Amino acid sequence: MSRFLKYPDLDAARALDAVDPLASMRARFALPEGVTYLDGNSLGALPRTTAARLKEVVEREWGRDLIGSWNSADWIGAARRVGGRIAPLIGAEANEVLVTDSTSVNLYKLLVAAVKASPGRTTILSEPGNFPTDLYVADGAAWSVGAQVRTLPVEDIVAAIDDDVAVVMLTHVHYKTSAMLDMAGITAAAQAKGALVLWDLSHSVGAVPIDLNGCNADLAVGCGYKYLNGGPGAPAFLYVAERHQARLRSPLSGWMGHAAPFAFDDGYAPATDIARFLCGTPPILGLAALEEGVKLFEEVAFDALVAKSRSLSSLFVTLMDELCGEYGFTLASPRDPAARGSHVSYGHPEAYAICQALIARAVVGDFRAPDILRLGFTPLYTSHEEVWRAVDTLAAVMRERAWDRAEYRERAAVT
Amino acid sequence: MSRFLKYPDLDAARALDAVDPLASMRARFALPEGVTYLDGNSLGALPRTTAARLKEVVEREWGRDLIGSWNSADWIGAARRVGGRIAPLIGAEANEVLVTDSTSVNLYKLLVAAVKASPGRTTILSEPGNFPTDLYVADGAAWSVGAQVRTLPVEDIVAAIDDDVAVVMLTHVHYKTSAMLDMAGITAAAQAKGALVLWDLSHSVGAVPIDLNGCNADLAVGCGYKYLNGGPGAPAFLYVAERHQARLRSPLSGWMGHAAPFAFDDGYAPATDIARFLCGTPPILGLAALEEGVKLFEEVAFDALVAKSRSLSSLFVTLMDELCGEYGFTLASPRDPAARGSHVSYGHPEAYAICQALIARAVVGDFRAPDILRLGFTPLYTSHEEVWRAVDTLAAVMRERAWDRAEYRERAAVT
Repeated sequence: MSRFLKYPDLDAARALDAVDPLASMRARFALPEGVTYLDGNSLGALPRTTAARLKEVVEREWGRDLIGSWNSADWIGAARRVGGRIAPLIGAEANEVLVTDSTSVNLYKLLVAAVKASPGRTTILSEPGNFPTDLYVADGAAWSVGAQVRTLPVEDIVAAIDDDVAVVMLTHVHYKTSAMLDMAGITAAAQAKGALVLWDLSHSVGAVPIDLNGCNADLAVGCGYKYLNGGPGAPAFLYVAERHQARLRSPLSGWMGHAAPFAFDDGYAPATDIARFLCGTPPILGLAALEEGVKLFEEVAFDALVAKSRSLSSLFVTLMDELCGEYGFTLASPRDPAARGSHVSYGHPEAYAICQALIARAVVGDFRAPDILRLGFTPLYTSHEEVWRAVDTLAAVMRERAWDRAEYRERAAVT
Repeated sequence: MSRFLKYPDLDAARALDAVDPLASMRARFALPEGVTYLDGNSLGALPRTTAARLKEVVEREWGRDLIGSWNSADWIGAARRVGGRIAPLIGAEANEVLVTDSTSVNLYKLLVAAVKASPGRTTILSEPGNFPTDLYVADGAAWSVGAQVRTLPVEDIVAAIDDDVAVVMLTHVHYKTSAMLDMAGITAAAQAKGALVLWDLSHSVGAVPIDLNGCNADLAVGCGYKYLNGGPGAPAFLYVAERHQARLRSPLSGWMGHAAPFAFDDGYAPATDIARFLCGTPPILGLAALEEGVKLFEEVAFDALVAKSRSLSSLFVTLMDELCGEYGFTLASPRDPAARGSHVSYGHPEAYAICQALIARAVVGDFRAPDILRLGFTPLYTSHEEVWRAVDTLAAVMRERAWDRAEYRERAAVT
């Protein structure tokens, strides 16, 4: 029915795909047939080269060359090398980024480092409703070093920075609402008051413009398995501005952060550069998979990626207005595409069951408690046709009350 | 020449292999042809099933089933599941072991937890010359929480435990000397003085008998990429005795350690069980590879594994006495096989160059600074014939002074 109306119909969506400069990138991913996958903001899709690369790492580098691969395959350099590939996506220099550990562990390192480097300041400031692991890790970091966590609505953060705030921890693009914060403005304001700022880029890297050095940023972390397509539980990255590297110390002082890891000295002497934020032996399989995901960005113009992200999410909002306006959805994301990330969320009292009904019809988004339906648009592989199909399917689910079944209401372990 | 002498010759070594109940396990590993690999104590070999399992995880679970695999492939349960498989190798219950993060990160978690749970005690006690990352991490943990690290020769440790010692951190089998400590005796003595004990099992798990619960152990960590054959940078494991789980808190309070990770509450409420020692999103590729390595132990009798470890290392020492006795090697490991792990070390002023010369002749051991040649015998796949070949080759290297070449003296990044 939709194709007789005036809003963008399937043909219009296809027309947008026909002129999409990134259209060829979709074939670089092994996406399942018949599935509209709009959850790449939670787990990115599989790049086609990844399986072959992992086979090579496993069979040749590990199986055949064994321990020698630490040198011959440069396993020992992987954390810096993959970090260097991520650097251009976040406006950093290669010597400011490492791939290591998880986002949570990296948050802990940098929070403790920031508090310890700020004599007389004992507060970690953040916003309520931040991605939970950020607040949980802040809680653990504060407990470790005798600091405290304070949360305030994001619009009140800057005004609340006082002489006790060591570090402001904020997420650049909100995991639920997709709202994007003013990185440059908040960073400058916090620094003017003597605080450091730690940005979580998990929901923005690979989808929106980020210019850490242009913003004079201090610290950042981010996730490898969302838009970077590094695979489930991929290692994460961290950024420490070069000017801070010699003065900030990681509490997780494992051997890979030592100035000379293979001297096997008893005394800890941190590397003088970004390597001091390494900890244990690097996870080579995870690093290899992530590198394949990150390499794909080297083939595209970042401006085109951002333009496509906005085009996809804007088409989605337009179609939701037109096709689903009567079903009680509330837009929970900014309407201005430049003010949000690459996912869009709607509130609905039946969001969980609706999400399950969509999945049953091969449109995969996700649910975020308590009442959010969240759909992510990955500019590297999502098409405008898929956006149209998602809203068309959602309209059918609502029209037919297809979500109102017991099995769609039973919550799975991971939602 | 060796076969005309009275010590075990090649035929004798082959005769030992012929009656080895574990001989069939070697075919379960994809070892390179023509290489005598005696470095499985540093990086274990590749199990034959691992490549196929990783292909399945990548192509089917990630590529096809995408986000749904957190439930359908039980990614969310992998940390507990693989931990449960390791538990019988270390004398623990399944609900006391998790696979997560790196050995270094897990050391940090448990050291901070132990100090924080010990009011009035602020010392972490260890031995000098412990594996460096253990001492480095202890340094970082102490710095984080305002404690201090004290090191004493291991024979003086128990006597030095006073009212200020929160936790004694020791490595069960020493990475360099292979000396095995008395876990039961030290644990009991430390506990009698009110201290906790944290055992690093990295160089013992999968090769020597470990009975954590039989020793009333408190805490332990261990490595996944040595005798467990989990692959380069495999995730590590941690053990917390059930009696301590509710009272010890991890400083690395990421979302996976929350009582309800997907409730997305702002407040941190740790899981009541071992799961509170999880942190970020689990590394699924690394967990899948490690699980293949650990599963192989379910096919063998552990007593037979231990017997073979001792048979291999004893043959090595016997042959070294006979074939290399004149070349200035000093046994740096206990002579009694029951008092050491599954590797044997010799001191020699030219150890680095000798190790390189051996590698050039396809006998792979490793060097540990400043002067140790270390050879590891993995009972799952090393044969007695390989032990014979290693010593025969080493004798030739020494006889011919084959190590005395400039290229063998240039140190690689990873030694």
